[in-house]
Amino acid sequence: MSRRGLLTGGALAAGGVLAGGAAVVATRAGQTGPPSVDAAGTTPVASVGGLVEPFYGVRQAGIATEPQAHGSFVALTLRAGTDRAALGRWLRLLTDDAARLTQGRPALADTEAELGLLPARLTVTFGFGPGLYRAGGVDDRRPASVADLPSFRIDRLQPAWSGGDLLLQICADDAISVAHAQRVLIKDSRPFATVRWVQQGFRRSPGVEPGGHTQRNLFGQLDGTANPQPGVAMDTAVFVADGPAWLRDSTTLVLRRISMNLETWDLLGRTDRELAVGRRLATGAPLTGTAEHDEPDFAATGPDGLTVIPDFSHMTRAHVTDDRYKILRRPYNYDGAPTAEGHADSGLIFASYQADITRQFLPIQRRLADRDLLNEWTTPIGSAVFAVPPGCQPGGWIGEQVLG
Amino acid sequence: MSRRGLLTGGALAAGGVLAGGAAVVATRAGQTGPPSVDAAGTTPVASVGGLVEPFYGVRQAGIATEPQAHGSFVALTLRAGTDRAALGRWLRLLTDDAARLTQGRPALADTEAELGLLPARLTVTFGFGPGLYRAGGVDDRRPASVADLPSFRIDRLQPAWSGGDLLLQICADDAISVAHAQRVLIKDSRPFATVRWVQQGFRRSPGVEPGGHTQRNLFGQLDGTANPQPGVAMDTAVFVADGPAWLRDSTTLVLRRISMNLETWDLLGRTDRELAVGRRLATGAPLTGTAEHDEPDFAATGPDGLTVIPDFSHMTRAHVTDDRYKILRRPYNYDGAPTAEGHADSGLIFASYQADITRQFLPIQRRLADRDLLNEWTTPIGSAVFAVPPGCQPGGWIGEQVLG
Repeated sequence: MSRRGLLTGGALAAGGVLAGGAAVVATRAGQTGPPSVDAAGTTPVASVGGLVEPFYGVRQAGIATEPQAHGSFVALTLRAGTDRAALGRWLRLLTDDAARLTQGRPALADTEAELGLLPARLTVTFGFGPGLYRAGGVDDRRPASVADLPSFRIDRLQPAWSGGDLLLQICADDAISVAHAQRVLIKDSRPFATVRWVQQGFRRSPGVEPGGHTQRNLFGQLDGTANPQPGVAMDTAVFVADGPAWLRDSTTLVLRRISMNLETWDLLGRTDRELAVGRRLATGAPLTGTAEHDEPDFAATGPDGLTVIPDFSHMTRAHVTDDRYKILRRPYNYDGAPTAEGHADSGLIFASYQADITRQFLPIQRRLADRDLLNEWTTPIGSAVFAVPPGCQPGGWIGEQVLG
Repeated sequence: MSRRGLLTGGALAAGGVLAGGAAVVATRAGQTGPPSVDAAGTTPVASVGGLVEPFYGVRQAGIATEPQAHGSFVALTLRAGTDRAALGRWLRLLTDDAARLTQGRPALADTEAELGLLPARLTVTFGFGPGLYRAGGVDDRRPASVADLPSFRIDRLQPAWSGGDLLLQICADDAISVAHAQRVLIKDSRPFATVRWVQQGFRRSPGVEPGGHTQRNLFGQLDGTANPQPGVAMDTAVFVADGPAWLRDSTTLVLRRISMNLETWDLLGRTDRELAVGRRLATGAPLTGTAEHDEPDFAATGPDGLTVIPDFSHMTRAHVTDDRYKILRRPYNYDGAPTAEGHADSGLIFASYQADITRQFLPIQRRLADRDLLNEWTTPIGSAVFAVPPGCQPGGWIGEQVLG
């Protein structure tokens, strides 16, 4: 049963029988104090809010998980003195918080316990920046590709959106679930770290798009068509298959904040937009095809003798056929306050997961930075890289293979 | 059929048959160019995203409408020279945009047409600040109670969140629908006005809470229990019943940005929180009752001889029994980026609808400002007042009774 299937099941349950996931949470919420909203029997907790994603596992949740509607990315900077032992205490605490909240149970020191009962597919994914390995004295366990990216000529990076020692990617199908989890995790982080930046984004709400449908970004483009499919393809692209315990089933995350200039994009006609991307806006089909997932024909030429798909189109430059070289895009849209003149502050929180940044992300990024027609309307304004360690089992904690 | 029922119907439709609302949108999207996502027949538009709220009517939408998950409040300042004729042109244009987008059709000059096809119960509600009446030379048509509020001693108002000549309240069950509508409406406003402020907020996603359930704010409290019920009670409280055309079926909006200090609130025990509010946190029941909608007994005393519900509890001070003096709370939560030390920037975009600000909002606000235990943890940091003119019929425009 697909995630989206489970979701639809939950929505159906709201009108009648309980779906498995929702039922589980209602029971658990009733079992654990402090007082829960359904303890009095007056306010049933049965809806998509009750759907859970597993927390424990060999890999962390929130990566292969079908993207939820809301995402908050919280980067923290270690305080002086947060050493290996302190990192271990901190991550044990945050692991416990995440294990509870994702399953619809309040955190141990939860002061807004009622907000912890509807996870709505909440996931918390932990990323380790280079600074965490240094502070922990475990730099020999840092995946080699997790290091500052080279500069690209298109970059206009702002410190306010860049770097970080620990990343918390908090996603759920409900904004209140995300806000509450963020609050709990940040409070429990205060002895160990300060907040470096927070980036909040959104995708379609649950049920707004049918399952499996590629979503649109604020340029109106389908975004993520070329993602590796769940199963062998995604596993190959995203997770490290072997090596020592701190590498096996780990992955890496490149997080780029990409400003999208709607003002100049809106001046462009549909044909020029489609040439810049290499795809039809309406369907996402390559300019040489009719359906979104048709294979593009980069050699096809038109009556003018030019290739139908421009050599510098975004699709051409980003195109990869071998799963070992693909990336998993898991982006969120952002839309800040416009200026007084009404110019938008819109863009993408571009989250790219891959087994190896050097092998997968960098070649694509170099080709895009070198020549991509879309660069005219997009600007990277933030950048950070993180190792995403393996998952853990009950009793364990995220990072134990790295810091234990 | 309730709004929420319709919503559940839409979610059910995603798994099988089409609900009425969703079907309507799919058809319309197919009928109107520019190219729509379902034109190729490969990407079905059938889900909660297709649900529509009526736009035309004697009253504006987005007031009695069951609150959607996402809300953006956009306040605009008129440019010099925006006179009565210009106001008329502007409002005709924005009315046409809203009439289309809310029904799942792109705006006339929509440059991201595909983003206009899934309204997800989108509503656009227009509010007129005092400055609009002055600029239009129609100050004699301004509802008397739509004027700057008196200062309250609890206020710490910031100009960045206060005032405005025109307000657009844009709500939908999907954040992309809101972002797109906001973009279109702001672009079409540029010749006439500048953006004064934008406040974006959220409630539970569709399906996360069962229908009719009161939502929680970021303090963890049920928020809105005392709202007038849909039907005669809400009509009495919210809409003007008679008078000239520009008043009948109009209402007023007080928009307050209320910062909620989670840092100090979290230091408080559950009992003290419940005394401050006068209700149980878990159920929302008055301290003298067992269920959320039980009538409070303000005279009941405890073994210590004191009233069970403190005289200065929020509920006591805000309590109104006569519908003519009630307000309709339609609030959204906000959660900005925390400080480096992890202090939250959370609160409420408190939207209060009532027929008459002077008769309904002000007495409650005075009692709360005077003595409300909750003031210790909440601070108004923004304030604006708007007349919300009647709705319009096809061919008409919002504001025609005021400016026509």
